[in-house]
Amino acid sequence: MATKERKILVAVDEGEESVYALSWCLKNIVNENSKDTIVLLYVKPPQVVYTALDGSGYLFSPDIIATMDKYRNEVADTVIDKAKKLCKDLQHVETRVEVGDARDVICSAAEKMGVDMVVLGSHGYGLIKRAFLGSVSNHCAQNIKCPVLIVKRPKTCATTSTS
Amino acid sequence: MATKERKILVAVDEGEESVYALSWCLKNIVNENSKDTIVLLYVKPPQVVYTALDGSGYLFSPDIIATMDKYRNEVADTVIDKAKKLCKDLQHVETRVEVGDARDVICSAAEKMGVDMVVLGSHGYGLIKRAFLGSVSNHCAQNIKCPVLIVKRPKTCATTSTS
Repeated sequence: MATKERKILVAVDEGEESVYALSWCLKNIVNENSKDTIVLLYVKPPQVVYTALDGSGYLFSPDIIATMDKYRNEVADTVIDKAKKLCKDLQHVETRVEVGDARDVICSAAEKMGVDMVVLGSHGYGLIKRAFLGSVSNHCAQNIKCPVLIVKRPKTCATTSTS
Repeated sequence: MATKERKILVAVDEGEESVYALSWCLKNIVNENSKDTIVLLYVKPPQVVYTALDGSGYLFSPDIIATMDKYRNEVADTVIDKAKKLCKDLQHVETRVEVGDARDVICSAAEKMGVDMVVLGSHGYGLIKRAFLGSVSNHCAQNIKCPVLIVKRPKTCATTSTS
């Protein structure tokens, strides 16, 4: 078992899947007494500013955009706080909030920080991207150079029985 | 850190990537003193028996097929032996050789055995399938219900400098 310091990047989002992925990682990968550093990364989706087709104006007024932005920041804070609570027994926890396409940001962060491992839930980032199931994890698994652990949340009996 | 017995399926093949994936897993995931069981799975590609387009005969004669089959078995033995040697410090190691499409066999074995985690290299299985880079790991990550760890072999400087 590794005793050297490792840096493990865990991508977190608002979904239950990422909470499960982080919990699984803490239970199965990270040694509480080790010097492992967990880096919690939340990727905020880029601000949506639709312009009209003729370029004459914005679809959303500035106050709506400000409200959306405030909401995005609150979501980011909530997700990071929740994730930090799960890591309360660890000595080395870092947090990062970045903006962009989750796929690119996670790959780029893993590369820049030179982490030893990336952990992520199997679903996309954010509720809208759920439509592209698995696209984030697929992209990361293909493009990140270090080992990537993809964790799926087990389906409950109630869920599977209705499928 | 988990102290319960876990069953970890590691898919091995003839490539250096899978050797690296297994080594990484042994170093980073498996506790030598734990009761973790490592299941080494090698998937033999299905026997290739091409029939002529008009169905009149085989492209390969029976003795060539027998030779190919012998070769496939030797490769399987070599891969499993090499993997077992890497696991020599572990108390619980199981080996399995199955035949079929690696993607289906790995998914099905993980399901049947109810393993806690699947570890595999990022490349396809066998030299021919290398053309479909990552297809096995992608398929497994999407279809296996338990956590899947995809390990890439770091490129050497010599390799990257020529690309």
